[in-house]
Amino acid sequence: MQIEEWAYRDLGWAKIDVGRPARTGTAEAVYAAGKTPEQVVSTLEALREAHPGRVAVATRCDAACEAAVRKAFGDNVFAEAGVCAVGEFPSPEAGPLTIVCAGTSDLPVAREAEITARGNGIDARLVADVGVAGLHRLLDKLGELREAACVIVVAGMDGALPSVVTGLVSAPVVAVPTSVGYGAAFGGLAPLLTMLNSCSPGVTVVNIDNGFGAAVAAARILGVKADR
Amino acid sequence: MQIEEWAYRDLGWAKIDVGRPARTGTAEAVYAAGKTPEQVVSTLEALREAHPGRVAVATRCDAACEAAVRKAFGDNVFAEAGVCAVGEFPSPEAGPLTIVCAGTSDLPVAREAEITARGNGIDARLVADVGVAGLHRLLDKLGELREAACVIVVAGMDGALPSVVTGLVSAPVVAVPTSVGYGAAFGGLAPLLTMLNSCSPGVTVVNIDNGFGAAVAAARILGVKADR
Amino acid sequence: MQIEEWAYRDLGWAKIDVGRPARTGTAEAVYAAGKTPEQVVSTLEALREAHPGRVAVATRCDAACEAAVRKAFGDNVFAEAGVCAVGEFPSPEAGPLTIVCAGTSDLPVAREAEITARGNGIDARLVADVGVAGLHRLLDKLGELREAACVIVVAGMDGALPSVVTGLVSAPVVAVPTSVGYGAAFGGLAPLLTMLNSCSPGVTVVNIDNGFGAAVAAARILGVKADR
Amino acid sequence: MQIEEWAYRDLGWAKIDVGRPARTGTAEAVYAAGKTPEQVVSTLEALREAHPGRVAVATRCDAACEAAVRKAFGDNVFAEAGVCAVGEFPSPEAGPLTIVCAGTSDLPVAREAEITARGNGIDARLVADVGVAGLHRLLDKLGELREAACVIVVAGMDGALPSVVTGLVSAPVVAVPTSVGYGAAFGGLAPLLTMLNSCSPGVTVVNIDNGFGAAVAAARILGVKADR
Amino acid sequence: MQIEEWAYRDLGWAKIDVGRPARTGTAEAVYAAGKTPEQVVSTLEALREAHPGRVAVATRCDAACEAAVRKAFGDNVFAEAGVCAVGEFPSPEAGPLTIVCAGTSDLPVAREAEITARGNGIDARLVADVGVAGLHRLLDKLGELREAACVIVVAGMDGALPSVVTGLVSAPVVAVPTSVGYGAAFGGLAPLLTMLNSCSPGVTVVNIDNGFGAAVAAARILGVKADR
Amino acid sequence: MQIEEWAYRDLGWAKIDVGRPARTGTAEAVYAAGKTPEQVVSTLEALREAHPGRVAVATRCDAACEAAVRKAFGDNVFAEAGVCAVGEFPSPEAGPLTIVCAGTSDLPVAREAEITARGNGIDARLVADVGVAGLHRLLDKLGELREAACVIVVAGMDGALPSVVTGLVSAPVVAVPTSVGYGAAFGGLAPLLTMLNSCSPGVTVVNIDNGFGAAVAAARILGVKADR
Amino acid sequence: MQIEEWAYRDLGWAKIDVGRPARTGTAEAVYAAGKTPEQVVSTLEALREAHPGRVAVATRCDAACEAAVRKAFGDNVFAEAGVCAVGEFPSPEAGPLTIVCAGTSDLPVAREAEITARGNGIDARLVADVGVAGLHRLLDKLGELREAACVIVVAGMDGALPSVVTGLVSAPVVAVPTSVGYGAAFGGLAPLLTMLNSCSPGVTVVNIDNGFGAAVAAARILGVKADR
Amino acid sequence: MQIEEWAYRDLGWAKIDVGRPARTGTAEAVYAAGKTPEQVVSTLEALREAHPGRVAVATRCDAACEAAVRKAFGDNVFAEAGVCAVGEFPSPEAGPLTIVCAGTSDLPVAREAEITARGNGIDARLVADVGVAGLHRLLDKLGELREAACVIVVAGMDGALPSVVTGLVSAPVVAVPTSVGYGAAFGGLAPLLTMLNSCSPGVTVVNIDNGFGAAVAAARILGVKADR
Repeated sequence: MQIEEWAYRDLGWAKIDVGRPARTGTAEAVYAAGKTPEQVVSTLEALREAHPGRVAVATRCDAACEAAVRKAFGDNVFAEAGVCAVGEFPSPEAGPLTIVCAGTSDLPVAREAEITARGNGIDARLVADVGVAGLHRLLDKLGELREAACVIVVAGMDGALPSVVTGLVSAPVVAVPTSVGYGAAFGGLAPLLTMLNSCSPGVTVVNIDNGFGAAVAAARILGVKADR
Repeated sequence: MQIEEWAYRDLGWAKIDVGRPARTGTAEAVYAAGKTPEQVVSTLEALREAHPGRVAVATRCDAACEAAVRKAFGDNVFAEAGVCAVGEFPSPEAGPLTIVCAGTSDLPVAREAEITARGNGIDARLVADVGVAGLHRLLDKLGELREAACVIVVAGMDGALPSVVTGLVSAPVVAVPTSVGYGAAFGGLAPLLTMLNSCSPGVTVVNIDNGFGAAVAAARILGVKADR
Repeated sequence: MQIEEWAYRDLGWAKIDVGRPARTGTAEAVYAAGKTPEQVVSTLEALREAHPGRVAVATRCDAACEAAVRKAFGDNVFAEAGVCAVGEFPSPEAGPLTIVCAGTSDLPVAREAEITARGNGIDARLVADVGVAGLHRLLDKLGELREAACVIVVAGMDGALPSVVTGLVSAPVVAVPTSVGYGAAFGGLAPLLTMLNSCSPGVTVVNIDNGFGAAVAAARILGVKADR
Repeated sequence: MQIEEWAYRDLGWAKIDVGRPARTGTAEAVYAAGKTPEQVVSTLEALREAHPGRVAVATRCDAACEAAVRKAFGDNVFAEAGVCAVGEFPSPEAGPLTIVCAGTSDLPVAREAEITARGNGIDARLVADVGVAGLHRLLDKLGELREAACVIVVAGMDGALPSVVTGLVSAPVVAVPTSVGYGAAFGGLAPLLTMLNSCSPGVTVVNIDNGFGAAVAAARILGVKADR
Repeated sequence: MQIEEWAYRDLGWAKIDVGRPARTGTAEAVYAAGKTPEQVVSTLEALREAHPGRVAVATRCDAACEAAVRKAFGDNVFAEAGVCAVGEFPSPEAGPLTIVCAGTSDLPVAREAEITARGNGIDARLVADVGVAGLHRLLDKLGELREAACVIVVAGMDGALPSVVTGLVSAPVVAVPTSVGYGAAFGGLAPLLTMLNSCSPGVTVVNIDNGFGAAVAAARILGVKADR
Repeated sequence: MQIEEWAYRDLGWAKIDVGRPARTGTAEAVYAAGKTPEQVVSTLEALREAHPGRVAVATRCDAACEAAVRKAFGDNVFAEAGVCAVGEFPSPEAGPLTIVCAGTSDLPVAREAEITARGNGIDARLVADVGVAGLHRLLDKLGELREAACVIVVAGMDGALPSVVTGLVSAPVVAVPTSVGYGAAFGGLAPLLTMLNSCSPGVTVVNIDNGFGAAVAAARILGVKADR
Repeated sequence: MQIEEWAYRDLGWAKIDVGRPARTGTAEAVYAAGKTPEQVVSTLEALREAHPGRVAVATRCDAACEAAVRKAFGDNVFAEAGVCAVGEFPSPEAGPLTIVCAGTSDLPVAREAEITARGNGIDARLVADVGVAGLHRLLDKLGELREAACVIVVAGMDGALPSVVTGLVSAPVVAVPTSVGYGAAFGGLAPLLTMLNSCSPGVTVVNIDNGFGAAVAAARILGVKADR
Repeated sequence: MQIEEWAYRDLGWAKIDVGRPARTGTAEAVYAAGKTPEQVVSTLEALREAHPGRVAVATRCDAACEAAVRKAFGDNVFAEAGVCAVGEFPSPEAGPLTIVCAGTSDLPVAREAEITARGNGIDARLVADVGVAGLHRLLDKLGELREAACVIVVAGMDGALPSVVTGLVSAPVVAVPTSVGYGAAFGGLAPLLTMLNSCSPGVTVVNIDNGFGAAVAAARILGVKADR
């Protein structure tokens, strides 16, 4: 049964926007930072109830939060890189989405994107550690990159990778700056500005460390449907 | 004849990347700021020569630059909002792309996006002056927004419009902050940050006033082909 | 007995401005950050002594501070969201004040505002989790919003909610940006700038996370009197 | 005849929100920066048509814009400090509103507030040049300040005046930072931060140089009605 | 015996500038942050050896560092507000220096200034908690302020106090912004900018939380001699 | 005749603080930026009337303003570096004050300080172009520097000069950052931060390009009396 | 005759550091911004007198300044990109230095570096318009790049080019960010941060648009001797 | 055996760029922040395998990471200042490189540079605690400084030291700002800007606290060969 697009569940302290899949194609996710483990669990329950066939996702979970989710949902939980996903991952119906990351320290953000994408039925693939300091590693993967229907590029420090990738492929590119770096990286400001000023036209950018948002943008680009 | 994807024309002071359409789907455009009118004209000529069937585009042209382009290419020029487009616009083959703008002062940036999109064979439509201070103006256009295969949202000042639009549609949304505003708008920094922090997941962002880049991103999303 | 408006209690290391209610309508509150629990308790005692009929409030209390206050004042203490309020809450004599908050992570700031308002004799009501990503949740509460004599809007991330609310009501709107968010939210800078640049005229803004200040502004707007 | 609150006039390139007075109590004003004189005049005409009994206001007008407005509306125009007001000012029905400004260089912003307020039927009074470097000038006006139902405080440079005023009166205070200053004033950033961090609780703040917005906030606070 | 002004003690990893009193009137102090307790103790020993009649001072000491200093120098140590002073305080020979602080949370910075000043033979007096929100507390101390040969004003949050004090006295004023505050105080940036932009001419400013530096500036102003 | 310290002249749009010399030792000056030439002249007239024996000073005058001042006061005007001084310079009664500047492009700011100082009866001397890139130029002037009762150091770009000077002399040092520089000088932010973080304790700092303020601070330090 | 390394010429308002070549290998240059044409000419004359065999250079010259220099030195002047070089260029004795620039708008900065380098006896070569959006243009020049004894990389916008170049060569790399770009380029801040955070170790950076400084760094690296 | 310059080892989650020495002269190092101890050890192993004769280096190691490295490589490890170096240090074949540091709190960054340099076969020497507040300490080492083939200058706070050193020597200077300082040092921003704006031409700059990068730049400057 399709939930009406203007519906929401009112928990008093929260109003779960259960009409979101009908309106936008992807479900609300729980941003766990600043919430109690109980609030996270209770919101996941409401999401599971509203969309039984969908994976319910909480991002930015700390250890206490992950433990609470595991306790509440048992084996049904997949947790990594601060993401707790409740429910069974659907078989991929769209893609391929290639997630490229510049350094190994950027992996948690890339993994947040990958898990979110897989939860939305996307065939997501990860190409790790191909930063521009050793360009041959990236060029070696050019074939794989060009097969992608959409590319997410994750990079910290100089954030130079999206400019290079975007000049090599014709697929849409979503760039994710990370807070990896120190000093004048200013918590991710440096790669964020790099990506916004890319000399390769067509690069689009999401917030620092926002692997989740990049995956949702990819889901929109790939036309994932809200039929669950 | 298809130009080889690794080709470029070497003018000495410039190396025109004529292989770009073959690699990325869209042609190089001339960023006129900081170039002499002669440099702009000469680059447009090289682009026209390499891709006779394509519109060649220069952005950020001032009056002197526009005059030089008109003198060089005559009737073949369409100029508005700082864009000079040389050649005939193709019939639309992809879209629709809806370009939404918050205030009338944002129109030049929206028009830069619209002209660039049309030059790439996209059916682009403009919905102007639907800022969130009078929400009913936007809701009145909801049907039109939901027909779009891709949406570009242009806004200055508080930059709140993309968050609202993205919660209402399932198409990909590319947000363009503008430098419209004063004081704590800090030349577009305020709407840029707003958009990067959107509470509606899936918003992607380009540089301040970068209507051109938003249109190229849309071309990638809509799968415009490099077959001209 | 009315305390003279230019009076203060001199504790040596502190000078309690007990004339403040007579001058400004609201009492001095204790900003607990950077003070020892003893200093907080001792200031609250001085405030209670000067204004026996008023709730004495300390904000930004940590656990140690709260424990000290509870130990000193016993059952007379209400504590939540870092606020310790000593004394009995008066019956509401002004309002209604509606406090709207965008996300559940913004609740502590909204609660700081609510408790402060109630301590000043205001009929305060909370509408939680009505962010603009699911606009229907807000529109559903439009009647309630329009009954308010004053509205406080609390939002982190994109900070877009005050612009939307202010376009729908005629009451005064006080906007409170919160530090909820990450990356380019820069500790609340993003929603702060959004609110200062609101396209809805008439929005006024207080400091990041400053629920207390918003409530005092509301008390001034609602004309709460200093007759206790 | 009352215009319906969800009405707007569609000029194609602009959608005049003529329902705004019915919803919010004050009419839309024209932000002239970035618009052509023709666009400003045509929007003012639409506003005059919709609300014949109201003053129609354009802010941030340059000389060319002011000339165009004068040509279009003749004697019906009052212009000063970049504001063009078309129509007859109503007799004051609310107030008094006292507008305090710190230095003589802040006067244009104070005047923008004053004219906007008067156009909304407010009894507005100006107290100029009472900066805190010579405190006795301010204290001399204490009586006048305390008669005000609302106070707007305009200050550049250190922006210290609102903190002092707010500690002396019980009326609501709206603070307006100005871009007056140099060096580390950073175009008004310094007084903006000062005001947001005021040690006097209850100060609310609008954008740098935003005299217009402060006046609209005052109109909301004073409960100006939309019955014209 | 006077140490030659170009002398230094070479510890290998450190070069103690024991000629500094002869050149500049005040001795080198140990900035303890980022040093091991051993390094702090060993530097203090070198300073004591070079200038047996002077108090040797380390600032920004944490608990471990203070313990090490107490262990090394025993009863000879006075420690407060992160300052460890070794040796006997001289009788005051210059001043009076009045140290004014806006709020009780600013006290540690004011105390760092006071101890440093006393170590340099200055008659230092503290006037606490006289922020501009309750101006009468400051005006009550006007006599005391005007007796001062030099004034240090310490304030966080809005940093407005130095502007007010400087308009009331003729002595030199050294302003110290503190990191007290939250949100848009940005770690002391707000009061720093306020003070740099003071509308009262003649205010001079030192780094955020730099009570030590303010006291050394006062020692130069008061002409403290390097004869020990 | 001594003017009462709480006096002011009320011009309506301005309130001249004629009591300032009695309170603070130096007279109000006119900050000409943002004022009309008429306003500047009229304020200078009020100052001359109140303090006939004092030089009346306007800073930041453009050509039009200087012309108006010359027209109003004739031969009685000395104008340079944007300063217009009306009246006869007194014979020096305090000092010497040495004004050191790093580069020749910093000269206008140094001259603003020099003229202001001389107007306040200070024996001011200028040492130009002794930046730290060629340290021997500075060391060559060490004798002169050490004779000074107060030192003002003016520097743009890296702003390193005050740290070096302060380590060589025992007089009070007031540092003035200038907007000389480009790129990452950010309009004077770079030298401002340098000076605030000086490793030489005792450096005090004024606003960027604020030669006037530095001279007033020097007047306070040198104890210039308000007996005219 | 070798000028003594601690020598300087005292012009009163300027102290020409004629000992600089003896100490540092390169001569003082005139930074023309903020100087009068007369000051520039007179400084160039002093430099020519001190070092007759050397090219004397002024940077950041506007048209008026260039005209004055041409008038003073006639045929002996080479002027381009804001640089005026007086004297005959020496035959190259060091290098090769390859100057790579990302876009044609970066050419003036690259030319400033090239002229400065040639004036110091360096064999300088320019490789223009090889930005990373079309990587093949750069890879095509790999041979040339690897022959260089030192490489200067000039780039605006995303500033990604130095990271790529540095991963391909073993020569020292000096990166120059330019102010080319708009919006979030923030006048060159974006490429500056990119370069400081390069993932290719060994990149060194100079100020925004500082082609002159990069060339002097190259002269130091290449060991250019001060024997003229 | 020389490894081919385009080679890399693919560990799946990491792609070790083992061709880097052949291309750039220095080997890849492990940036340990954000990596697990296992990842660090495993990468070091791959580096040791590829280049058995080279020291393999990990920077920014915490205690857990250092323990894991010691456990894996035993006596072969040298660890200090967050650096873990595995393998035997080669005898110096290039230099001398003099590393100058301003204060003792800057020592860890200077040590990171020194160890990295020694690992690359450079004769590195440390001159500590010669900040400009006591200039004679630096001048005392002038002979040593002038013997250097390359100089690294490490400084926090005001960052003034590189300007002074660069004016005294002709060798290339690489400046390293550190995060030592507080308040307006803003985590190293202040010395970073100082160094970028140095009035001594030829200063080049690396990221805040980037001792490693400075040493690699020095290796390039000194022409260290990749023949191991």
